[in-house]
Amino acid sequence: MADDKKLTPRDTDFSAWYNEVVLRAELADHSPVRGSMVIRPWGYGIWERMQRALDDMFKATGHENAYFPLLIPMSFIEREKEHVEGFKPELAVVTHAGGKELEEPLVVRPTSETVIYSMFAKWVQSYRDLPILMNQWANVMRWEMRTRLFLRTSEFLWQEGHTAHTTEREAEEETRRMLEVYRQFMEEWIAMPVVTGLKSESEKFAGALRTYTCEAMMQDGKALQAGTSHNLGQNFSKQFDLTYQSEAGTEEFAWNTSWGVSTRLVGGLVMTHGDDAGVVVPPRLAPTQVVIVPIFRKEEERVAVVEKAHQIRSRLHDAGVRVRVDDREHLNPGAKFWEWERKGVPFRIEIGPRDLAKGQVVVARRVTAEGEDRKAFLPEEEALANLPGLLDSFQDFLLERARAAREARTFRGVESIDELKEILETTPGGFVHSGWCGDPEVEERIQTETKATLRCIPDPEFRSETPPDRCIGGDAPSSAEVIWARAY
Amino acid sequence: MADDKKLTPRDTDFSAWYNEVVLRAELADHSPVRGSMVIRPWGYGIWERMQRALDDMFKATGHENAYFPLLIPMSFIEREKEHVEGFKPELAVVTHAGGKELEEPLVVRPTSETVIYSMFAKWVQSYRDLPILMNQWANVMRWEMRTRLFLRTSEFLWQEGHTAHTTEREAEEETRRMLEVYRQFMEEWIAMPVVTGLKSESEKFAGALRTYTCEAMMQDGKALQAGTSHNLGQNFSKQFDLTYQSEAGTEEFAWNTSWGVSTRLVGGLVMTHGDDAGVVVPPRLAPTQVVIVPIFRKEEERVAVVEKAHQIRSRLHDAGVRVRVDDREHLNPGAKFWEWERKGVPFRIEIGPRDLAKGQVVVARRVTAEGEDRKAFLPEEEALANLPGLLDSFQDFLLERARAAREARTFRGVESIDELKEILETTPGGFVHSGWCGDPEVEERIQTETKATLRCIPDPEFRSETPPDRCIGGDAPSSAEVIWARAY
Repeated sequence: MADDKKLTPRDTDFSAWYNEVVLRAELADHSPVRGSMVIRPWGYGIWERMQRALDDMFKATGHENAYFPLLIPMSFIEREKEHVEGFKPELAVVTHAGGKELEEPLVVRPTSETVIYSMFAKWVQSYRDLPILMNQWANVMRWEMRTRLFLRTSEFLWQEGHTAHTTEREAEEETRRMLEVYRQFMEEWIAMPVVTGLKSESEKFAGALRTYTCEAMMQDGKALQAGTSHNLGQNFSKQFDLTYQSEAGTEEFAWNTSWGVSTRLVGGLVMTHGDDAGVVVPPRLAPTQVVIVPIFRKEEERVAVVEKAHQIRSRLHDAGVRVRVDDREHLNPGAKFWEWERKGVPFRIEIGPRDLAKGQVVVARRVTAEGEDRKAFLPEEEALANLPGLLDSFQDFLLERARAAREARTFRGVESIDELKEILETTPGGFVHSGWCGDPEVEERIQTETKATLRCIPDPEFRSETPPDRCIGGDAPSSAEVIWARAY
Repeated sequence: MADDKKLTPRDTDFSAWYNEVVLRAELADHSPVRGSMVIRPWGYGIWERMQRALDDMFKATGHENAYFPLLIPMSFIEREKEHVEGFKPELAVVTHAGGKELEEPLVVRPTSETVIYSMFAKWVQSYRDLPILMNQWANVMRWEMRTRLFLRTSEFLWQEGHTAHTTEREAEEETRRMLEVYRQFMEEWIAMPVVTGLKSESEKFAGALRTYTCEAMMQDGKALQAGTSHNLGQNFSKQFDLTYQSEAGTEEFAWNTSWGVSTRLVGGLVMTHGDDAGVVVPPRLAPTQVVIVPIFRKEEERVAVVEKAHQIRSRLHDAGVRVRVDDREHLNPGAKFWEWERKGVPFRIEIGPRDLAKGQVVVARRVTAEGEDRKAFLPEEEALANLPGLLDSFQDFLLERARAAREARTFRGVESIDELKEILETTPGGFVHSGWCGDPEVEERIQTETKATLRCIPDPEFRSETPPDRCIGGDAPSSAEVIWARAY
């Protein structure tokens, strides 16, 4: 059945557009369980490629995968005071199992610091057992009242890295190293530029010493916290007796870090690159990079055109391109075009009888730079030779376009809450840089008045040339440049 | 710290040996949550390779991955009568979430037929939407009282394939196709030969029409059900309204299949190949295939030997071998040998100053065929050139050895329960073929008297040359040859 109804345009209602595009590109669907989603093959195929790329990067930086239990005793979660305060309202709790009431309720992990560091404590005796550099790919559960596909669901898929070190400095280096891995992954694979920086005390992870973040700007100007990396200090090692004997023979607490990204990144991809026709998937993550649509009217045309389509498929496949032929017989070419555009396949090849006669094919890009042609009529050999390079430059184009969009909506040197409010109330808002005195009361006031939060104290490369000297909240001197935005 | 205590020999206590070897090879550990285990990097590394190999085979047979919710409404599980009877005693139930009692309890999935077919029902309208061929990699929960690492834990990791078809015949073909994929994977990757066949009514999956199984024989003669593939008929499609419009325009119920293997396979690997020195990992699944141990006394020897070790590592790595240098300084070579033998690395290379002088290395195999030398002194170039081939023949050797062990403990033509009992009570037992009249009462009697269960009605290639004519349980004629064994 051809699904040719138009999407709500982004300008009309970005939020409605997002929901429609996720459902109609078949990235995900609502499930019968409130707040849980089903990730459909097209969405899961993107996630799988994200996983593979990240996993390679984790391994290249010395990490190993392991797997820890889904269920965590309630008493574990309660041990670190800030941690339980942060997570308790969102817990899902197993009270009965095997036909009986449990003696101690078990929580479905919202994150695994507690159970993982209790295991590290069992494994570590001496400084020689450190560092431990582990990662797990898992599902986690944080009960949410207002959910949105990929962005905020009760259950989501993620990876959580957990490490233990002998010194604070080594833990800090690891925290920053993994933040940099995330930044690089988000830019090179998702083509989603991010600002990196430090979270304020009120926005940091429950139980961390310091939280670093990657903040991406969506097309509606809102921020997406795309990944975080935490220096946990000795907060958890003290609660779980994670100690080691030092080279000098003394008993010391280890230093921990944790870091995670989730299926939320698929939502970030959609809101960074999508347009009114649908999703746009960066080539490096696209389950299908090129779709070939044969075009014909008569049976004798069909045979020749479909055969040529499969020949081209096979040659592109051999050149390392993820390619498929859409030879479904009950859909006309237009319906196929709409479907693959909605799903965001980067390139489409059309072949009809006339193209066949001329030895050419039509190559259509999913999106073009201004002034560029959408379609090119290319000799078959040239198309085949060019496609790998076209995929690379398409990937670069998406990153550059997203970077330019972010720069166009980054406002610097803002000096008052009124000015901040005015910017945020003009569609599509953006990232606002200002000075800040470090007082959480200013954060609260801004959140109440503008619905913006302090996204981060940006790393040096994202700071303004002239550092702000006053706090946005009044006359106090600024102690740090910060970025404000409304956020997902 | 060198862990050089010997393992309990398999002959003394196979079960104690299994537990010790899993813990001390660092495949897994007990967790603070009763019945849940932690899969440590060495064990997870094996599982990751199993996943990758299976995933490639699933994709090559046209399947796509997706992800469905962890939590399933209790009412869904209750809808298929046999299904709920089978799983209800093992359910873990979430009753509270987000600080409130839930209106309807949610069960942590023990398997996902119910929620998956409810989604298929939403996606399928016409025969054109079929077949659906999906798979998910997930954790599942079946509350167990007596647990054993990898073999039987409350939480385990698995894949579950779920498909929907227009005809019973197509569903049956899919069920058999995936059984064959499992058989091939188990033999080619785990080097674990299996008998394939049909489960009896009393042993089939709760809710299936027919269950096919892969049964492997462990070294203690017991059977491990290593993977199953179910033809679900229309049992679930009828409960979840999974219908489609046929080409003729009529409304029909779809036909479903499901199939799964789990982390239990890691336990199967251990009990198929392990020996009194530890685990033996087949090369195709080994996270490290070759470990290089430098041997030296003086500092000047150390520099040269370690340098050579890394040179060889780098060349083997370039040849596609998974190789590492163990240059830890606080352990002597003997301690390293024990550790890597316990973990089951297929080959070890030793390099000392004298080897260096002679341009040779020592290549030691983890296990040898009878009469074969454990160690070979080879010129460096020859060792480098031979290792990829040695890994292949090591893989073949493990399969052949396991096949021979199974054949040696397969008993055919057994005609009475007394005879069956006698065989099973002689260590190490085995697989016993006999005739069966099809009466479940005979199964019950045999289980009570011998603790054996009917493992399967074997596929033709595993049947005896002369088919049995009488049922093992008495004078009734046999309607099928069956295999009895005690099982994990």
